Amino acid sequence: MKTLTITAIATLLFLSISGSAQNTSKADQKILNFIFPKGELGPSGNFTGKAWNIGLVENDTIYNTVVGNVYFEPGARSNWHRHPSGQILIITDGTGYHQIKGQPKQSLKKGDIVKCPPNVEHWHGASPDTGMLQQYILPKTEKGVVTWLHKVTDEEYLGNK
Amino acid sequence: MKTLTITAIATLLFLSISGSAQNTSKADQKILNFIFPKGELGPSGNFTGKAWNIGLVENDTIYNTVVGNVYFEPGARSNWHRHPSGQILIITDGTGYHQIKGQPKQSLKKGDIVKCPPNVEHWHGASPDTGMLQQYILPKTEKGVVTWLHKVTDEEYLGNK
Repeated sequence: MKTLTITAIATLLFLSISGSAQNTSKADQKILNFIFPKGELGPSGNFTGKAWNIGLVENDTIYNTVVGNVYFEPGARSNWHRHPSGQILIITDGTGYHQIKGQPKQSLKKGDIVKCPPNVEHWHGASPDTGMLQQYILPKTEKGVVTWLHKVTDEEYLGNK
Repeated sequence: MKTLTITAIATLLFLSISGSAQNTSKADQKILNFIFPKGELGPSGNFTGKAWNIGLVENDTIYNTVVGNVYFEPGARSNWHRHPSGQILIITDGTGYHQIKGQPKQSLKKGDIVKCPPNVEHWHGASPDTGMLQQYILPKTEKGVVTWLHKVTDEEYLGNK
């Protein structure tokens, strides 16, 4: 009984500790369910904050489809950009945003699907306090993959226009 | 202290109970990380056992890409089938198999990516004891989506040829 009590208290202490400090990136990575390795840090020219990318399906002429996964750390987001054939996003964990130029910012959570039409400017990223794990699908890559544009300002990131 | 002990014992009992009977489908669903709802049961004419499908991206002429998620319960698998433009599978949890006609059966686990080329016969499904969660991507749907064929026999499912 004594051993059981000590084990139980240790378990509860662990649960308590692991639930704290959720705002840090380290805690964030413990909370989120990573399906793939984090991959490589995205270039600072195309991202604000830390966004990690891993390619899952490379471009070829058989499927003409690029698939990958991005982990946006809390506060991280892409620049504005567009895709010649559009993009499909699948949110697998965490919370974040997607915004199409001229439309309100859209909140995202686990299980959400987003489509951005061809040649339309958009950005996506994590919420300020929690990271976001998202898969991306780029179809019809014979038309190209991505054109990077300017940074998403703090006003755009934190605002709702 | 007394309350803490009782809470702790209850926690440990719960952990113990939820970890048992892993071979049942009910336990399987507690263990796996579901990103999407299970969806609808696949028709028995195209599947052996219980395979649940939810559509995530419907077919259209903008992306020409169909995306969905299948939860194969333990022992469940598709019939043999082929896709006019091939298929990309993303395993998000659990364990299972993929087999291309004439090739050895391939074991699958969380994080694995599978490509099946256009017009090639294949089947996929869960392992006998653990279910499998998999997303599927069908590119270039202007050529069609799927042609269903015959059932995967127990010999094919359990064998390695």
